[in-house]
Amino acid sequence: MANYTPPVRDIMFTLNTVADVDSILALPDFAHVDPGTIEDVLDEAARFFSEVFAPTNEVGDQKGALLEDGNVITPDEFKPVWKKLVEAGWTAVTGSTEYGGHGFPKTIGLTVSEMMTSANLAFSLNPMLTGSGITLLDRHGSDELRDQYLAKLISCEWTGTMVLTETEAGSDVGAVRTKAVRNPDGSYAISGTKIFITWGDHDLTDNIIHLVLARTPDAPAGTRGISLFIVPKFLLQDDGTPGERNSVETVSLEHKLGIHASPTCVMAFNNATGYIVGDENQGMRYMFTMMNQARLEVGLEGLSIAERSYQHAAEYAKGRIQGRAVGSTELSPIIDHIDVRRMLMTMKALTEAMRGLIYDAAAAEDRLEHGEDESTRSAGGERLALLTPVAKAWCTDRGVEIASIGVQVLGGMGFIEEAGAAQFYRDARIAPIYEGTNGIQALDLVMRKLRLSDGAVVDRYLDEIEALDAQLSGAGADLSDVRHQLVLAVASVREATAWLNESEDVRARMAGATPYLEMFGTLAGGYYLARQALAALPDADADSWMAAKVATSRFYAINLLPKVHGLLPSVVGGPQLLTAVPDVHLGASR
Amino acid sequence: MANYTPPVRDIMFTLNTVADVDSILALPDFAHVDPGTIEDVLDEAARFFSEVFAPTNEVGDQKGALLEDGNVITPDEFKPVWKKLVEAGWTAVTGSTEYGGHGFPKTIGLTVSEMMTSANLAFSLNPMLTGSGITLLDRHGSDELRDQYLAKLISCEWTGTMVLTETEAGSDVGAVRTKAVRNPDGSYAISGTKIFITWGDHDLTDNIIHLVLARTPDAPAGTRGISLFIVPKFLLQDDGTPGERNSVETVSLEHKLGIHASPTCVMAFNNATGYIVGDENQGMRYMFTMMNQARLEVGLEGLSIAERSYQHAAEYAKGRIQGRAVGSTELSPIIDHIDVRRMLMTMKALTEAMRGLIYDAAAAEDRLEHGEDESTRSAGGERLALLTPVAKAWCTDRGVEIASIGVQVLGGMGFIEEAGAAQFYRDARIAPIYEGTNGIQALDLVMRKLRLSDGAVVDRYLDEIEALDAQLSGAGADLSDVRHQLVLAVASVREATAWLNESEDVRARMAGATPYLEMFGTLAGGYYLARQALAALPDADADSWMAAKVATSRFYAINLLPKVHGLLPSVVGGPQLLTAVPDVHLGASR
Repeated sequence: MANYTPPVRDIMFTLNTVADVDSILALPDFAHVDPGTIEDVLDEAARFFSEVFAPTNEVGDQKGALLEDGNVITPDEFKPVWKKLVEAGWTAVTGSTEYGGHGFPKTIGLTVSEMMTSANLAFSLNPMLTGSGITLLDRHGSDELRDQYLAKLISCEWTGTMVLTETEAGSDVGAVRTKAVRNPDGSYAISGTKIFITWGDHDLTDNIIHLVLARTPDAPAGTRGISLFIVPKFLLQDDGTPGERNSVETVSLEHKLGIHASPTCVMAFNNATGYIVGDENQGMRYMFTMMNQARLEVGLEGLSIAERSYQHAAEYAKGRIQGRAVGSTELSPIIDHIDVRRMLMTMKALTEAMRGLIYDAAAAEDRLEHGEDESTRSAGGERLALLTPVAKAWCTDRGVEIASIGVQVLGGMGFIEEAGAAQFYRDARIAPIYEGTNGIQALDLVMRKLRLSDGAVVDRYLDEIEALDAQLSGAGADLSDVRHQLVLAVASVREATAWLNESEDVRARMAGATPYLEMFGTLAGGYYLARQALAALPDADADSWMAAKVATSRFYAINLLPKVHGLLPSVVGGPQLLTAVPDVHLGASR
Repeated sequence: MANYTPPVRDIMFTLNTVADVDSILALPDFAHVDPGTIEDVLDEAARFFSEVFAPTNEVGDQKGALLEDGNVITPDEFKPVWKKLVEAGWTAVTGSTEYGGHGFPKTIGLTVSEMMTSANLAFSLNPMLTGSGITLLDRHGSDELRDQYLAKLISCEWTGTMVLTETEAGSDVGAVRTKAVRNPDGSYAISGTKIFITWGDHDLTDNIIHLVLARTPDAPAGTRGISLFIVPKFLLQDDGTPGERNSVETVSLEHKLGIHASPTCVMAFNNATGYIVGDENQGMRYMFTMMNQARLEVGLEGLSIAERSYQHAAEYAKGRIQGRAVGSTELSPIIDHIDVRRMLMTMKALTEAMRGLIYDAAAAEDRLEHGEDESTRSAGGERLALLTPVAKAWCTDRGVEIASIGVQVLGGMGFIEEAGAAQFYRDARIAPIYEGTNGIQALDLVMRKLRLSDGAVVDRYLDEIEALDAQLSGAGADLSDVRHQLVLAVASVREATAWLNESEDVRARMAGATPYLEMFGTLAGGYYLARQALAALPDADADSWMAAKVATSRFYAINLLPKVHGLLPSVVGGPQLLTAVPDVHLGASR
């Protein structure tokens, strides 16, 4: 069984050094939150998710979710844990106080989400998707819908789902065909088959609230004709409690590579009763308002699975005795073998770099939503827009990479399911795919985000990294390699950025998108770790944890940051080499 | 169901342009092989492995191997296919003609192995391990043992296993504790428990011949006290047919991430009767004589799973319609989306680069074993020694990378088991682990192989790459980017090589080993593709397959080869940054 110890100290350190959490807690919207209690809250969350939630991870993988007589059955071990989760209020951290939530900043909410996701990714998806539904409903729903559903969703007495995908409408959401016909009473009759519906059904709550994309009969084609509906599993009675069963059916469950405990449903809506959220044909616009949130949370999955996999590998490496390390006269734990140590340091450095990126983006979201003046909100919004695709794609790709390293650290045992590393490797693989594939994230970054404010948004971010040079210079020899490598890396990313933003060729920019995103993420990670090293340096002599922080930043600067240079030719290489081989010679060819 | 079409044209092209197969077939030892029939043999193999063997891959994954009453049961679908495989003689391609084999060069044998492994990796491991046993027995066994076992093993009427690992003896083989006590009749009584025994038991043949590492009572400690024994599942009667059951028991099967159809056995030997191979205490030396072969074959697994995954992804990308590609007025197959094409080109370029590396190493093995003069044999041996760890580690890491890209190409379907890509992702993950972890390969490359002949072996290989510059220069603009990037890449690898070979610090060299191996493999891949581009260029105007070959080399040069530069600082960074963080701050830490 793999243990999980929430990294509360690194979480707090990142909140303070990267997210500047004090400035967020000082905002008027958070006047009800006592900054002095944050660390206690995190400690309490850490206890809950390590002791109560994490032990469900392995059994959830083994038993999975099952479909019996049209109902999804979760593992027995999940039911009491879900009850405790709801009672403890860990799903309501960021929910509106108006509807019973704690009204904490997103930045704090994400730290709790990080722990929940590390503890059990598959299980965490149920509250996570409910959170997306809450945001949509809170922002765009009528007062009546908000009053009927929000409190129950925030408490997770009921859960929410996101019902978007159809067989022919995956990345191309505009191809949605599910129909919504207006009834005389103002409700709608929803009909269609949806796929890949995460936690579309389960036995943990007495209602499930589906947020469904569908098309009214006279709607325009494509994304401009999509509307958003609330479709409860059980229609509400006049007193607000669940009554009659709606005609929403779980047709089948997918047999997946990982996250077995998360039921992925094919769902049939047969004239199901739905209630429109906001106005007709505005569904895609509403979805976009919560897209940054959802993508950030999937990026967080990369971080969370990386942290869990890293802890698991380090624990194994400390205990597994094999061979003699150089200079040792006795058999050694494999953590003493230098190539194993390289693997663990790579896991550590990337994981902490990801945490910096994710928390910075979360802080930007709080500034966007709660900043006191327009310039703060605008700066927060721009930063969030820029960092979201990077956080989603770079962190989920690193999650897969780190889970794979975790398998390798265990050697032969890495391939044995009971040892635990294999589950992380399987579970991690979903995150680069859903909530917009990583290829789509790269296109979003390069085609849209780089050109925000005529390139000024990305320039400001790179300026900020360059401005760190003065402080790094002041730190002297201790951080001279960090300083040196950061200067070189920024220069490479500047060159790539300029090339992309100066190019008039849409295909050339698209061709460079994926390697550019990797360059950008790699640089950003090095930047956050450099800031942390600067903050840790004064205490490094007295505190080995701080010294480790400095060493991790230096490790990253030498071993990981230079990868940007190897990616540059690929960004500026143009589309010709990607299209020169005709289809007939891709795949089996003679 | 995933189809597989053996890439016979690229196999032949690589045999001709990289392995110089004509010069191998011209060796006296292969006088019985008609060079003109090679392509026909490959076509016939292609038919067999695509039509008969490949259809077992998915069902093998789903059903797996089962242990019932101490016997391993394979899927029913395997039995008739195994019978056909043996009858067709595809396991006997390289076997000695003296014992009924075809006596073909290893270079040809590996092309057949490539197809078998692409068709069904888990199933292919049974003949593959039998091949290792054949080599050991052929080289080191007594005439009596050879006469008793070789013909049956070469035909695969019986199969062979490699029984090395114990719970405390994994990478550290010298820690083996299984005992071998000499009986009065000259046989030995073998006792001990072994783990991770691939195809340790099954129901496909009427005998299984275990090659077991064990230790005699008075043997020296460590690797110098290990002996090698033959332990048949059924003892042979006087007429050479299987008789009494030997006391070898399959205790349990591992529950693995992938290669489910390959039974991974825990095996108990309880005073089992064994026969020594060669002399006492020479077991490890014998193992080393077949280690290059086995490592090359595991490297081949990386290539094979990459080819299968690549074909599968390309086929899906041609059929899946989603969104509109730039410039298209209609919905497009996703292969038209440029980021999908980048994924497919990356898969193609890496796969063909691996094929070059593996086949070159196989050709070196043939020259070592069959060269007419000492200088040919010696050059072959040195090249094989240098390339083996690279072929094993670089190709298996790329196998995992490509299988992961294959999942990504399929989007949401990549995560669904029935779609097929997930199996490749799971299966591929074993190859970086077994037959010496990739970390051990890197140490072998840097600590031993780089210093062969005082560094002259690696220098000659790098000289050879540099010497290509004259030809690339002659090719003019068509290959100018290949030439340019190859010059830069060789310079980086030269610098890394010199740093490692000049260093007196063992730990520093070990610290740089893994990134160095990746640099070396990346350069080697670019080199083989450049040679192929030169060979293809004259026909590129008339033949789109040849033009694709040129384009693939150019793609690799711009998009993949420059990665070496990003790895250089990591190689020469020294051990300090890998050891600066104390154990207490690796993994969960406060």
